[in-house]
Amino acid sequence: MYSVKEIMESRTLVVIGASRNPQKLGSLLLKGLKDTGFQGEMAGVNPGGGEVYGIPLYQSIGEVPFPVDLAVMLIPPKVVPSVLVDCAQKGVKGVVISSEGFAEAGEQGRHYQEEVQAILKSTGIRAFGPNTMGIVNTETGLATSYFVDKNMLRPGTIGIAAQSGIFVGALLRYISSYKDLRISKVLGLGNKVDVDESDALSYLMDDEQTRIVAMYLEDIRDGKRFVEVARETVKRKPVLLLKGGRTPAGARATASHTASMAVNDKILEGALHQAGVLRMGSIEELIATLIGFQCTPLPRGNRIALVTYSGAQAIMSIDAATADGLELAHFGEETRERLAQVIATPSKRGNPVDIFPDMMTHGFEKTSTEILEALLEDDGVHGIFFISFATPETEPFGPLVDVIRQRPAKPVFFSLMGIRKDVEVCRAFLEECGIPISLFPEMAIKVFSHMWRYSVTSQ
Amino acid sequence: MYSVKEIMESRTLVVIGASRNPQKLGSLLLKGLKDTGFQGEMAGVNPGGGEVYGIPLYQSIGEVPFPVDLAVMLIPPKVVPSVLVDCAQKGVKGVVISSEGFAEAGEQGRHYQEEVQAILKSTGIRAFGPNTMGIVNTETGLATSYFVDKNMLRPGTIGIAAQSGIFVGALLRYISSYKDLRISKVLGLGNKVDVDESDALSYLMDDEQTRIVAMYLEDIRDGKRFVEVARETVKRKPVLLLKGGRTPAGARATASHTASMAVNDKILEGALHQAGVLRMGSIEELIATLIGFQCTPLPRGNRIALVTYSGAQAIMSIDAATADGLELAHFGEETRERLAQVIATPSKRGNPVDIFPDMMTHGFEKTSTEILEALLEDDGVHGIFFISFATPETEPFGPLVDVIRQRPAKPVFFSLMGIRKDVEVCRAFLEECGIPISLFPEMAIKVFSHMWRYSVTSQ
Repeated sequence: MYSVKEIMESRTLVVIGASRNPQKLGSLLLKGLKDTGFQGEMAGVNPGGGEVYGIPLYQSIGEVPFPVDLAVMLIPPKVVPSVLVDCAQKGVKGVVISSEGFAEAGEQGRHYQEEVQAILKSTGIRAFGPNTMGIVNTETGLATSYFVDKNMLRPGTIGIAAQSGIFVGALLRYISSYKDLRISKVLGLGNKVDVDESDALSYLMDDEQTRIVAMYLEDIRDGKRFVEVARETVKRKPVLLLKGGRTPAGARATASHTASMAVNDKILEGALHQAGVLRMGSIEELIATLIGFQCTPLPRGNRIALVTYSGAQAIMSIDAATADGLELAHFGEETRERLAQVIATPSKRGNPVDIFPDMMTHGFEKTSTEILEALLEDDGVHGIFFISFATPETEPFGPLVDVIRQRPAKPVFFSLMGIRKDVEVCRAFLEECGIPISLFPEMAIKVFSHMWRYSVTSQ
Repeated sequence: MYSVKEIMESRTLVVIGASRNPQKLGSLLLKGLKDTGFQGEMAGVNPGGGEVYGIPLYQSIGEVPFPVDLAVMLIPPKVVPSVLVDCAQKGVKGVVISSEGFAEAGEQGRHYQEEVQAILKSTGIRAFGPNTMGIVNTETGLATSYFVDKNMLRPGTIGIAAQSGIFVGALLRYISSYKDLRISKVLGLGNKVDVDESDALSYLMDDEQTRIVAMYLEDIRDGKRFVEVARETVKRKPVLLLKGGRTPAGARATASHTASMAVNDKILEGALHQAGVLRMGSIEELIATLIGFQCTPLPRGNRIALVTYSGAQAIMSIDAATADGLELAHFGEETRERLAQVIATPSKRGNPVDIFPDMMTHGFEKTSTEILEALLEDDGVHGIFFISFATPETEPFGPLVDVIRQRPAKPVFFSLMGIRKDVEVCRAFLEECGIPISLFPEMAIKVFSHMWRYSVTSQ
């Protein structure tokens, strides 16, 4: 049996079900591979032969004149088994079965999937899918989905494994718009006829390019093995898990999506939590948490400081922080003295630090930078949430960014209220500076709590 | 005792603590009132006399040559009681005590606040605050905060009552950037020395301009009365409540913010829920829910339909919907036949309706409009969530908007994934068309569940 690593590092590739019709997936995929600059040899298989985008098409895989590592199948389920046998004869190591219509689609499809499974077992070929966009390796420029473009292939450290068809493509499009979110590898699992969540996580655990793992799963086939692999992985890198099918109705829907089987979510959830896996409540939380890990250092504790212009926002933040297991830091004496230099009202310089209305005296820049410096230099503070007003120009935030860059040892999260246009301008500036920024602080607080949990469980 | 209504409809106004220094709040406020076009007579009180922005300043309120409805106080706590006595002699009906430094700031401040309370009782003057940005009436152009500008005063139907200082100003700035979120009245409550949450809600219940009420509260003084007023209000308009101080640490912080006292949140929460008050989990949820009520009709039931390109997103949506008490609609026979016209794969035309990959056959426009029409015309469907891909141009969404406008009887929510730039372009287009749009469907589902709950409890 070949390893997942061998498949992920495929140097040559054939698309079975290639097409000369530019509207068809079998054409779009080859165009995509050409555009993304995959360096290995490529060919297509199509009964009519010919070529598309300069890539030769052959009538069968047997006719391809070079050794084939990976075959991507865009062909009807009923022909997949026989083509898989051809692939074995050709010496193909792995296949991505993109086609839908297997176990997720009913009795006949389940039969095809069982046939595929038997052939895989007897030949040692590894398979992703069926019903998946397949795999991405940004080190080699390999991407078996036409949803992926060059921009999404800029190499980074985020490894993704997802039991989905098209969702990962959409997610990649979205997150690649963030300059700090760059991908290492993607493993699309689909119906998991062979490579499953434990295989994928095990591969990402050992993959040196991958520094953080994000997973979307609809079921977990072998809970015991997955928990074991997860526990080992967490010792080396964070594992973020988004789970679909958490409710009975959601679980029923996974059956017709990726032929998943419901498991007792509560028990598994407890075991994964113990293993240190970070459970994400939503796609939004997954993305925000990836940004947190990518852009800020790990917190050394759970004591946070809040800086705000608004008592109400501070109180809602404290509620959120308490619910997430965080505590308000007690400031050291030196910090209290430094805060007193810029905030005259004693009740405003506790934690939360309320910069309004005292900032009217010294101005926003001096007040906010002095506060931030003092808090960054207080060892009793493990993370800072700066809840501010958006301004029409970004200038007021420049000095704050400098203060943070000069003291990079603890995470600082910004959130901004104000006129949306101003929020957008300031958000873009802070994001460009690599500082996590959200409209409301609640999500940032959740991200910090995940990072704190990871820093505890990974030790 | 004057009524809250009389104060909210003040026709003349004096700012006590007016300033000629353009940096000071007492100057910024008068400039604001001039800019926002308050039509009533205005004056300032300042020991030095003179004028600012063409508004005359007098040495005391007694010298003001016209009858004064409302006095806004920007003066130190210790002089507030004696000035209040002067106001009573002048015949002032109401005051906004903007100044901080009362009960929220310690023993001395508490003493001042008690003095104020005694004078109010003996004179019948009504007071907002202390420690508040005060009040807004978009019918008359009255706004006692320099945070409010002309754009925020375009009259609308959202009434806000908030126990906060500056937060409401920030919230107004933010929500006024949404074309469909327009304000009727704002009542800033601060420390609630007189006008409290029940007075404010009672006023907004009767106010004809107000069609929906949003509240931010840190404590509820008279739980029994508030629940009664809320129950009556819900019969006429939705009440959305954001509550700060829900955790012990949050509740402690409210003491130094608005001198609030912790109450047993669980019991009150139950009573308010029974009264039909919609509890908001975050500012984000509050804003999204306001948009839902403003832009879409009330749902007639809790059966939803999902249209999506991604099974994974559909499953996460079903999980969210189930958690929020919603159910998946069963499509009628006619609907199933109509869906079969554009979606060949039977397993893709259940609920969720999966437009991928069948839309490759008929194109996105035809596929999506046919589906949306069929679902909008199925009486068993009470709300539709359209989870789509963002496109670089907005054209594909135009026909969908037309379909919705021609069949305006049920709520349709969009969410979009894709490249952020594309998401932004499509979001702006749909928002301009008055269609609720979010990046992820979870928040839209929560909004729908609030609207459904309101439609049940208000009957």
